[in-house]
Amino acid sequence: MKKYTVGIDFGTLSGRAVLMDVESGEIAATSVCEYKHGVIDRELPSGKRLPPRTALQDASDYTEVLSTTLRAVMAEVKADPCQVVGIGIDFTGCTMLPVDENMRPLMFDEKYKDEPHAYVKLWKHNSATKEGDDINSLAAERGEKWLYAHGGKTSAEWMFAKILQIQREAPEIYERTHLFLNSADWVTYLLTGEITHSVNIAEAKELWSEEDGFPSREFFEKLCPEMKDIIGTKIPDNMVYVSSAAGYISEEGARLTGLPVGIPMATPVLDAHASMPALGLTEDGTLMMILGTSAVHLVHCKEKRNIGGIFGYVTEGVMNGLYTYEACQACCGDHLDWYIRNALPASYTEAAKAEGIGIHKYLREKAKKLRVGENGLIYLDWQNGNRSILTDLDLTGALFGLTLQTRPEEIYRAMIEGTVFGAKVILDNFEANGIRINKIVASGGIAEKDDMFMQICADVFGREIVVSDVKLSASKGSAIYAAVAAGIYKDVIEASDALGVRSGRLYEPIPENTEAYGRLYAEYLKLHDYFGRGGNDVLKRLKNI
Amino acid sequence: MKKYTVGIDFGTLSGRAVLMDVESGEIAATSVCEYKHGVIDRELPSGKRLPPRTALQDASDYTEVLSTTLRAVMAEVKADPCQVVGIGIDFTGCTMLPVDENMRPLMFDEKYKDEPHAYVKLWKHNSATKEGDDINSLAAERGEKWLYAHGGKTSAEWMFAKILQIQREAPEIYERTHLFLNSADWVTYLLTGEITHSVNIAEAKELWSEEDGFPSREFFEKLCPEMKDIIGTKIPDNMVYVSSAAGYISEEGARLTGLPVGIPMATPVLDAHASMPALGLTEDGTLMMILGTSAVHLVHCKEKRNIGGIFGYVTEGVMNGLYTYEACQACCGDHLDWYIRNALPASYTEAAKAEGIGIHKYLREKAKKLRVGENGLIYLDWQNGNRSILTDLDLTGALFGLTLQTRPEEIYRAMIEGTVFGAKVILDNFEANGIRINKIVASGGIAEKDDMFMQICADVFGREIVVSDVKLSASKGSAIYAAVAAGIYKDVIEASDALGVRSGRLYEPIPENTEAYGRLYAEYLKLHDYFGRGGNDVLKRLKNI
Repeated sequence: MKKYTVGIDFGTLSGRAVLMDVESGEIAATSVCEYKHGVIDRELPSGKRLPPRTALQDASDYTEVLSTTLRAVMAEVKADPCQVVGIGIDFTGCTMLPVDENMRPLMFDEKYKDEPHAYVKLWKHNSATKEGDDINSLAAERGEKWLYAHGGKTSAEWMFAKILQIQREAPEIYERTHLFLNSADWVTYLLTGEITHSVNIAEAKELWSEEDGFPSREFFEKLCPEMKDIIGTKIPDNMVYVSSAAGYISEEGARLTGLPVGIPMATPVLDAHASMPALGLTEDGTLMMILGTSAVHLVHCKEKRNIGGIFGYVTEGVMNGLYTYEACQACCGDHLDWYIRNALPASYTEAAKAEGIGIHKYLREKAKKLRVGENGLIYLDWQNGNRSILTDLDLTGALFGLTLQTRPEEIYRAMIEGTVFGAKVILDNFEANGIRINKIVASGGIAEKDDMFMQICADVFGREIVVSDVKLSASKGSAIYAAVAAGIYKDVIEASDALGVRSGRLYEPIPENTEAYGRLYAEYLKLHDYFGRGGNDVLKRLKNI
Repeated sequence: MKKYTVGIDFGTLSGRAVLMDVESGEIAATSVCEYKHGVIDRELPSGKRLPPRTALQDASDYTEVLSTTLRAVMAEVKADPCQVVGIGIDFTGCTMLPVDENMRPLMFDEKYKDEPHAYVKLWKHNSATKEGDDINSLAAERGEKWLYAHGGKTSAEWMFAKILQIQREAPEIYERTHLFLNSADWVTYLLTGEITHSVNIAEAKELWSEEDGFPSREFFEKLCPEMKDIIGTKIPDNMVYVSSAAGYISEEGARLTGLPVGIPMATPVLDAHASMPALGLTEDGTLMMILGTSAVHLVHCKEKRNIGGIFGYVTEGVMNGLYTYEACQACCGDHLDWYIRNALPASYTEAAKAEGIGIHKYLREKAKKLRVGENGLIYLDWQNGNRSILTDLDLTGALFGLTLQTRPEEIYRAMIEGTVFGAKVILDNFEANGIRINKIVASGGIAEKDDMFMQICADVFGREIVVSDVKLSASKGSAIYAAVAAGIYKDVIEASDALGVRSGRLYEPIPENTEAYGRLYAEYLKLHDYFGRGGNDVLKRLKNI
């Protein structure tokens, strides 16, 4: 009788579960559950308007994923629950929430239904920029070691900026909170009854390090006296490592999910990290790009380095024996969708409809015919701020070179080119800091669907790129971690070598395009540095005028 | 029995005639004739593709205007031809053409039907940038006085850059040409049989000055040996002044138009200039803005000054006793139309349709509700290059401050704001050079229709603006010049005082908007100078990568 693990990827708009054969790695069944409440960014369910740059979620959506998808995948293959030997999950991050003594989210308290700070703060909630700045400047002043490990600047989207914002803007919620948890650790509690703290997430988004733990009591005291004792009180410090079980399915967890009591649950990881074992990326110098609404670039390296402008790193948090460095682009597909909704003329929408094809495909067909540079445009891809390597969420986008002849497909292509230039800045920064990149593997919705985007990547980078054949890579990666927690494989490398999908579609650079893009990239870099490094801070000031 | 003059305004897409009562100034009848061939900018009638930035016209369209509109206005009021005592015309400029010994346009020669350089070159034909640069650099090297009178840089859209392009790219056409004429002087020939050269046009767009005439033989010899003797041979030097008759309607002219033989035809002027008498602008320090597809700013001043960055000037060429300085914006309504066609989403097009209102109106209603600066955007209004004060047609447009929340009406408003900032640069430059501006009067399609645009002008400038009530101002101005040529008024000032329309709609600045725009304008200026004055020439390079 076959044995399975399940993996669930908790994304921005849905949870996606897979049932994986632990021997072959084959995905036997999948199930997707869209979140009923989606992203709450305009108003609360009560109708209360939200401030700009707010992005919340409803914790009941996660519970619903647990109660529906696992039963669905088991039903699909008619598996007996006892065939399931482990579960793993991954989550967007830093997505976090405040809970009370009973581990119940504060947002469920009737009293707080109008209080945004009682809700789950989604990873892309980014209004805590003041708090992020305060953390960075205090850390710089005190010479905090962790600041340099995170590239010299930490993000306003991370755990402690979000908590500091709650303390400042809703002190009652801060007081009332028993624990601040990342959502993955909260879901772990739902399933196991254990309060644990994932090392993978804490190291990537919560300033934790193996050597020094969390930032010191002195640091927190200076930052905000009310937070001085937060570690160990409102922040659990029962750290659990990837490759190990965070706990075992409790009776309540079994009732919720239909899984058998007592099977191990792997320590949860960040969604991007979970993809790496699914792609079989177990080697030093392998870079994975996940190209979706935003973009994540993760690269393995044997050595520990302090790298300016990166987003974070984890120590053996993805793969045994390897550091994994992470850099991000705050939007990728998101600004292309913005473009379709806000700046694509009716004539194109209608023409695509008449031809019976999707609008991205229609634009791509036209944009593909343009020679490199023919559009005469350069785009600074900061419509959602810049995560790497400038780490400045206040930056905004810009489009240069418009004429009266500029056509929509030229703008569309320029937006893609600008995004790929942004990725090249990240890759160049890794290499400038001594991280060798031997191989690039891409994954995510854009990599799967947009061959023009991928060819532009190959041309701009001047490198081969493989688009992985794997589907639902994060969910599958979670199932792989579960197989390790279940003791079927000795470590993640062994499991990933056995179960990961290494095949894919190859994109090769076209030399004349690489040459032409070299000149455009030089122009992009000059604008990137002028507007991103203080030559003219207008793009940041505009947000506040 | 009433006496009339007729005025015809030869625009970019049509000719517009008015019949004016010479005593009251009342417009008794109007007639518009659309050009059959419009602007020829993609291919010749033969199907031959045209190079980029080409803009041609067909001279037969002008003849058709003459043969239809004058009969139409006379028929409308059942006027006897003998009631018409004079005619005046105005033209876009520099719009020019090559003709043969019989004054027949070379484009009508079957042999040259595939030769773009045989056609009328429209004012906005702007591919002669290399030729413009060569003229400017040679003039700078030789310290030519006229260079400084034109603000230190002459335009690639003017007469001699256009001729030099013909000589270089189609030497056979250059050789074959008997005369190069601006289109207004050619139409004057059709009506009067006289070959004359309008001082107004020659001074504004053909490097002529009262003191020194045309550039010297030595200059032309250095520029292009074949052109050394051009003045007096291929360029007529029989100069005629505004306020005087260029000639009298010939028998052929009468046959063509239905006008009586022998009535005077006023010296033709540029379209923008013709508007000033129609608006009754006869005083030192009055600035007229014509806001249409592009924008023209004309200001009267008693003194002669060399002003950097202006487009041109005329000496008593508009109004007796006054110098008139001209600065231009290469697009105004043009880029708003570009926006509607190329970047307005279907949802907006459909909503406007559902509400049964025009798309500009729909956008304006939304954009009006935005507070100053709320859009967080700045637009560099150079989608058709910059005429003033940078005089650089290779510049391109740019949009700064995009976020994922940016909405179409925000972009639309930013484009208008950027255009008005561009106008403020021009006004500030006039004043910095000692030209007082006491009064601003606006005219043109945008001034008439777009109250939001005009309020933004008042707010950005921090000044009152009057939008003139006059209709068909250029046509009417031409009819006023005709009344002077006919001897009914002693000079243009007297005629303009008697016949001009001084009433209009007043826009007053709102102090808090003026204050907020002050900060945005400072940001605009910084970008203007960085990208326009050599800090980073990327906007120019992009056109050529």
